[in-house]
Amino acid sequence: MLKRFGVSLEETLLESFDTLINDAGYTNRSEAIRDLIRDTLIKREWLKGDAQTAGIVFLVFDHHRMDLSRKLTHRQHKHHDRIVASMHVHLDEHHCLEVVVLKGRATEIQSIAESLVSTKGVLHGRFIGTAAGKAII
Amino acid sequence: MLKRFGVSLEETLLESFDTLINDAGYTNRSEAIRDLIRDTLIKREWLKGDAQTAGIVFLVFDHHRMDLSRKLTHRQHKHHDRIVASMHVHLDEHHCLEVVVLKGRATEIQSIAESLVSTKGVLHGRFIGTAAGKAII
Amino acid sequence: MLKRFGVSLEETLLESFDTLINDAGYTNRSEAIRDLIRDTLIKREWLKGDAQTAGIVFLVFDHHRMDLSRKLTHRQHKHHDRIVASMHVHLDEHHCLEVVVLKGRATEIQSIAESLVSTKGVLHGRFIGTAAGKAII
Amino acid sequence: MLKRFGVSLEETLLESFDTLINDAGYTNRSEAIRDLIRDTLIKREWLKGDAQTAGIVFLVFDHHRMDLSRKLTHRQHKHHDRIVASMHVHLDEHHCLEVVVLKGRATEIQSIAESLVSTKGVLHGRFIGTAAGKAII
Repeated sequence: MLKRFGVSLEETLLESFDTLINDAGYTNRSEAIRDLIRDTLIKREWLKGDAQTAGIVFLVFDHHRMDLSRKLTHRQHKHHDRIVASMHVHLDEHHCLEVVVLKGRATEIQSIAESLVSTKGVLHGRFIGTAAGKAII
Repeated sequence: MLKRFGVSLEETLLESFDTLINDAGYTNRSEAIRDLIRDTLIKREWLKGDAQTAGIVFLVFDHHRMDLSRKLTHRQHKHHDRIVASMHVHLDEHHCLEVVVLKGRATEIQSIAESLVSTKGVLHGRFIGTAAGKAII
Repeated sequence: MLKRFGVSLEETLLESFDTLINDAGYTNRSEAIRDLIRDTLIKREWLKGDAQTAGIVFLVFDHHRMDLSRKLTHRQHKHHDRIVASMHVHLDEHHCLEVVVLKGRATEIQSIAESLVSTKGVLHGRFIGTAAGKAII
Repeated sequence: MLKRFGVSLEETLLESFDTLINDAGYTNRSEAIRDLIRDTLIKREWLKGDAQTAGIVFLVFDHHRMDLSRKLTHRQHKHHDRIVASMHVHLDEHHCLEVVVLKGRATEIQSIAESLVSTKGVLHGRFIGTAAGKAII
């Protein structure tokens, strides 16, 4: 159910905000403010550590290192119940990017993600948490 | 070509660092320090804005909103030359997560990503830049 | 001048938001949303680099290293027109914390701050930008 | 006690890193790597929440609002055992910036900082944690 409430804002601040959200492609203020609020709530949720949640980790590596692909696949299979899916993309002749989606307890999936990023040969990687279920309603 | 150099560190600091990287799954210090350095360089690269690079954006939304799926697909097709691939995953009965990989000029792909995140109905989303080519060697 | 507008939010999301801002000490939603908006605008401003702005940098170091105090003071004086003030605090028997407030062009004061953080002997430091004048109205 | 160990890095990566740290004012690689490592450790420490630590919060506000100055002073005094010192700086005719240094348990001082930032009339503010004692050796 939607609830409506009023917000007071200095005119100049509101103008800057309108410019910003127009540039970002928002069609109305409610939507932009909803996103700010959700993002703030999800960051909080993650600080607690034990929430059931979801996240993605990406990995950039040299695809000529066949042993690395195998190692990454192996590490992912060890956590098959937390790893939902992965996608592989070719960035240039040498490098590829793998995106892995994880689901589970915050601390757990973050630690799996870290073990992928830290695999020898992975050139860049980072984990980003989002949320599933209640927190994103 | 690999170059080797020496680093001096306080013993207690080194012990804490070793614990941290062991927990993260690193097998040696060089690999962990390489990752710290690459991450720092890539962050810098992104601040410049005009580098040829790559990034991912994820989008969480209610998959019952058929219009939204269509709108997201439409917005992605408009930038088909920048969007390399996307993957769709079901988080729970209501929510799904879409991960999109982009390639191109930093400011350009960030702005495409923002226009996806700001689409009405997207509950959570964030863009993360990585790098292609020279910056991740 | 204050402007008032309406925001629609899912009831459960609004409840979570109310809990969050109550915990943080806000007495009404407008104030919390204003802060979210200002913070977003200021982050944007900083990405442009040439705005007239303000920032703070803190430095943690061992105060027994007299040469370091002298070096930090010297480096600060070199930029006396950008450095507004600094404060020194004792954290424990060994460590002290110095907070420096800077004013000027974004890229310029960030670079001065970095030169302070990178001074040999500084154990931890970080720069955070805020804004002066128009951006914070 | 200092410990010395070797790090292997790709030549091109090392060159980029050298450029970066020169720009930032570092005189040698060890110092720059030490800072990267300390920063990573301190971020971890903060995620745990119960460490004895230190932090700073800054507050930007309109100094014509006398009631606000009084309110901020009052809130700070309520936590006099956690608040070590504060400094006040004039940014322009209207705005001033107050920097407050706090010491205590991570979660506790963060919550005090939030209650200052959320005070009605504070235009911008943020809290940044550093560390005291063991974590910054």
